[in-house]
Amino acid sequence: MILYYAPHTCALASHIALEHAGVEYEARRVDFSTNQQQSSDYLAVNPKGRVPALVTSRGVLTETPAILACIAQSYPEADLAPLDDPFRFAEVQAFNSFLCSTVHVNHAHGPRAYRWADDPGAREAMKRKVPESVGAAFELIEREMLRGPWVMGETYTICDMYLFTLAQWLESDGVDIARFPKVADHRRRMAEQPVVKSAIAAELGSA
Amino acid sequence: MILYYAPHTCALASHIALEHAGVEYEARRVDFSTNQQQSSDYLAVNPKGRVPALVTSRGVLTETPAILACIAQSYPEADLAPLDDPFRFAEVQAFNSFLCSTVHVNHAHGPRAYRWADDPGAREAMKRKVPESVGAAFELIEREMLRGPWVMGETYTICDMYLFTLAQWLESDGVDIARFPKVADHRRRMAEQPVVKSAIAAELGSA
Repeated sequence: MILYYAPHTCALASHIALEHAGVEYEARRVDFSTNQQQSSDYLAVNPKGRVPALVTSRGVLTETPAILACIAQSYPEADLAPLDDPFRFAEVQAFNSFLCSTVHVNHAHGPRAYRWADDPGAREAMKRKVPESVGAAFELIEREMLRGPWVMGETYTICDMYLFTLAQWLESDGVDIARFPKVADHRRRMAEQPVVKSAIAAELGSA
Repeated sequence: MILYYAPHTCALASHIALEHAGVEYEARRVDFSTNQQQSSDYLAVNPKGRVPALVTSRGVLTETPAILACIAQSYPEADLAPLDDPFRFAEVQAFNSFLCSTVHVNHAHGPRAYRWADDPGAREAMKRKVPESVGAAFELIEREMLRGPWVMGETYTICDMYLFTLAQWLESDGVDIARFPKVADHRRRMAEQPVVKSAIAAELGSA
């Protein structure tokens, strides 16, 4: 398998999941500084021009929630999701869906405001609201969603690596993580894990 | 089970899936015109203040991709997703994740621009770009993702009800569906299904 990633993107979540699963894979960096994600070679892999993309023997998978669930289901021995209980699995998916469609989207209005408006003033207005919108989403996570010690409670799941990944961005989003003691504690414990350290080192080392 | 919905929202996808599964449920309308989604009663059901929310005997589920996958897994006899193949199931999830995090989000910059900027001019700039950003997302669906006759090819899945739901919004998003012959044909065939008709009639009848 080949995981296409770029440092400091949501691809880190899939990277950590692959490390947890203990499978053989190659992590291949997409150079955002030269806009490689829009090159014809990369668009042939992922027509969306985004990361992550996971190339498997069956075909290419995109979208973090789908890749994470696929890794969990394909390597059940890694025990990364409640696979035998549709309701609990749906809770995992609901959490990850909130991260991709609300948390990540709110964050993206800083670095990727051009997706949603052409006017430079409008883009600045969007950037100004990022601390508020990302802060509100993490407030909901802190208050209602993160059960502790892990997202789903006692069991570590694919939600944890995804939350950790997006929580990496809080400082650059202008949100003080000290407002969210449970999120801060979660991020600290995640950062101490050897598989998390090695995924981050692999991404930054190849920069 | 109780499905909380509002007409003309993405809750329609879950509504159609419940009809397909043939289960007993009550569809309960949330009145957006009086901002009922932010009432304390509704926030006690879904602290996000959004629809859909599905109340089950195990707890409350939110987020369309999670609800759809849960219905498919809980009622395997309805045959709404490739449940025994992690890769094919991930393809279904990747499609639905694209709908929630890209297509729906691009659309939301029209009616819900206030989520991402306070400045009225910025909100107008966002609205102006909706035809382009929604159009580009549907172009990708038309060209790369909708295999035909159904999203995943020969097999009808939870992707179809979700795509149909968001394709309902093309006209109000200022996108001409005639640009996308496969999407247009898909929408037409979906609209003819008795379960789709009855879900729509139930939503609009209670308005």
